[in-house]
Amino acid sequence: MPHDAVTPDAPRPSWRDGLPPPPPGPAPEAHFAGSQTVRDIAIGMADGLTVPFALAAGLAGVVASNPLIVTAGLAAIAAGGVATGMGAYLAARTDTDHYAAERRREMQETFDWPDRERWEVLAILHRQGLRGDILAGATDAICADRERWVDFMMRFELELSEPEPGRAQRSAIAIGGAYLVGGLIPLSPYVFLSETSPALLVSSVMTAIALTVFGWLKARAMGLPPGRGALHTLGIGGAVAAVAVLVARTVGG
Amino acid sequence: MPHDAVTPDAPRPSWRDGLPPPPPGPAPEAHFAGSQTVRDIAIGMADGLTVPFALAAGLAGVVASNPLIVTAGLAAIAAGGVATGMGAYLAARTDTDHYAAERRREMQETFDWPDRERWEVLAILHRQGLRGDILAGATDAICADRERWVDFMMRFELELSEPEPGRAQRSAIAIGGAYLVGGLIPLSPYVFLSETSPALLVSSVMTAIALTVFGWLKARAMGLPPGRGALHTLGIGGAVAAVAVLVARTVGG
Repeated sequence: MPHDAVTPDAPRPSWRDGLPPPPPGPAPEAHFAGSQTVRDIAIGMADGLTVPFALAAGLAGVVASNPLIVTAGLAAIAAGGVATGMGAYLAARTDTDHYAAERRREMQETFDWPDRERWEVLAILHRQGLRGDILAGATDAICADRERWVDFMMRFELELSEPEPGRAQRSAIAIGGAYLVGGLIPLSPYVFLSETSPALLVSSVMTAIALTVFGWLKARAMGLPPGRGALHTLGIGGAVAAVAVLVARTVGG
Repeated sequence: MPHDAVTPDAPRPSWRDGLPPPPPGPAPEAHFAGSQTVRDIAIGMADGLTVPFALAAGLAGVVASNPLIVTAGLAAIAAGGVATGMGAYLAARTDTDHYAAERRREMQETFDWPDRERWEVLAILHRQGLRGDILAGATDAICADRERWVDFMMRFELELSEPEPGRAQRSAIAIGGAYLVGGLIPLSPYVFLSETSPALLVSSVMTAIALTVFGWLKARAMGLPPGRGALHTLGIGGAVAAVAVLVARTVGG
């Protein structure tokens, strides 16, 4: 294209210049990358299954009116889904702001206290086992580029990784969506059955099955033992629901 | 003491051997360290304020019975507080298990594919600007100790930091406790007032004030502009509550 022909990109030195080719190694799939989204869905789904179940079960012992239970349940699902989604969005945004603020401060320190910040790189590399000329040379190389210097400090001194762009939106959708989907499972029997006691029974069975399946899938996705994960999720969900039902019946009875 | 005299500790080489003293620098308090706990309290408090408020407000338009609203509200607070606390505990435990699993795998790879794993250290240091003898020497130094080698890969290749011990318990208490405390604020007017409409009004005002104060404190603790934080939290909390009230009234009306 003409525009490109007028201002061609100068050949830039690649970061791979002088780097030998990689020896054979394990496939990159060996490490699990989607843990953050799985974690978000897990949080949303676990809360969505247990909180509306517990609310409905608690009310079922006090008011024998399924339409009222459905109303309260849907209000709780809507509030919980939007609140957890928004909360996750804000938390991720706060992380991004926090990272940016710390990076600005760290950058400023390389201007205000250059010797000290250079020494901190030296101390970190020293702890990695570097000594003598290698230590001095490596410190010089890292501090030669201020962006790199600051990035190195962010990771090794502050142990902060740069938040991924778009993480806030993805996290909000994963947590909020999982909450809404999870919440409709324990509530659906109160919609389709007219009597409260059978609805509570069906809701308990459906929630227990959903917790077990979901715990199993979550553990598998994280590369952990699925059977233990299923029992874990079922046990925790059951305990949460039992506490909530007890509170509601104590207050309401 | 006699026991010490019999088996004295051999003088071990300190990791500071050969490291020059630090030049003067900024006070360590300049960086904010408690962000994780503040973040946890923020999540729990935001959810605790908005979800029970929205549930109570949604029900207030459908049933004019404060005892019933209090029962549903307490069930929701108990379920939400326990569920978010337990959820945070499990998420932190999952992080710890995930870190340990990835570290074992990375350790195994240094036995199965030592050349490849050495090359990965070389590639990372190359990207940090090291070249030639310095690059080779620094790679040798890091890979000379297998624990250090693996730690280096965890941080720079996988971008994983070792989870703090005790983090799961602290996170559970911070999120769950904040949820319980936050939830009692919007619910209390329905306990102390007998009519539904004035209770809804007082609950709305108290929740709005609590969201504003809490948003202000949270932003201050994170080193962000407090006024913006207050408006932000109030706006989000109000939006969440409005959506939930709308759903409850649509279904129940």
